[in-house]
Amino acid sequence: MSRWPLPEPMRRALALAREAGEAGEVPVGAVVVRDGVIVGDGRNAPRETHDPTAHAEICAIRDAAVSLQTERLTGCELYVTLEPCAMCAGAIAHARIARVIYAASDPKGGAVAHGARVFEHPQCLHRPDVVAGIGEGEAAELLRSFFRERR
Amino acid sequence: MSRWPLPEPMRRALALAREAGEAGEVPVGAVVVRDGVIVGDGRNAPRETHDPTAHAEICAIRDAAVSLQTERLTGCELYVTLEPCAMCAGAIAHARIARVIYAASDPKGGAVAHGARVFEHPQCLHRPDVVAGIGEGEAAELLRSFFRERR
Repeated sequence: MSRWPLPEPMRRALALAREAGEAGEVPVGAVVVRDGVIVGDGRNAPRETHDPTAHAEICAIRDAAVSLQTERLTGCELYVTLEPCAMCAGAIAHARIARVIYAASDPKGGAVAHGARVFEHPQCLHRPDVVAGIGEGEAAELLRSFFRERR
Repeated sequence: MSRWPLPEPMRRALALAREAGEAGEVPVGAVVVRDGVIVGDGRNAPRETHDPTAHAEICAIRDAAVSLQTERLTGCELYVTLEPCAMCAGAIAHARIARVIYAASDPKGGAVAHGARVFEHPQCLHRPDVVAGIGEGEAAELLRSFFRERR
């Protein structure tokens, strides 16, 4: 028996999450894809960079926007290993990301399917498609083992 | 008769908003203050910098955090000319800003007193004090004249 393979961008996001964890950051990774090609990536780095906004999604969006020389990532997909928080959901909307694919759910800090539910208000000027759960087992285990080691 | 003077950080935020407008960006400015001293500032710059996250608040928070060499702006105040959106409210919470002072209300895009009301959910791990309305006349007029000229 073999497992259904994860899409390549989510495998890359998980690798970035692992890299974050090894650097002592909460293990979350993200990539931005356009026409099947990765155009930006990022991982959590707030401690190392002294930047409270340096979540994986923000880093990946900034990376892609600079690469593509536009602040509008129209038609792009964002793969991320954890449900985005309010800050990141807001950034996704501002960037006009067409679709968000996230792995693990985050009832404690998420703002897509939990809490602020940023995309569900009329004040949110762009609402991406949202797909959840691809790679959630791997993503959640990375987070669990990170916090277990630090307890 | 004279008007009650605006606090110096809000005057500086308004000057930054004006600067943004002159550069063709939506006129919003922000500063971060610690112990009465400005430790970071920013203005809207998403177009110029190809960065959809480059709102005034995010720029000011990143500036202050790098200056102070910490991702936690504990005890700091953020002055901003417009009610923060969901992205910026989330960033304010992550940065552990103690107090947010904003000028104009933003029923269309705000996420503090409108829409997602980011600080009001248990998923928001830090809730700043919020003070609204100082300098709102000046801030709103900057925005109105910016959009009037572009119609």
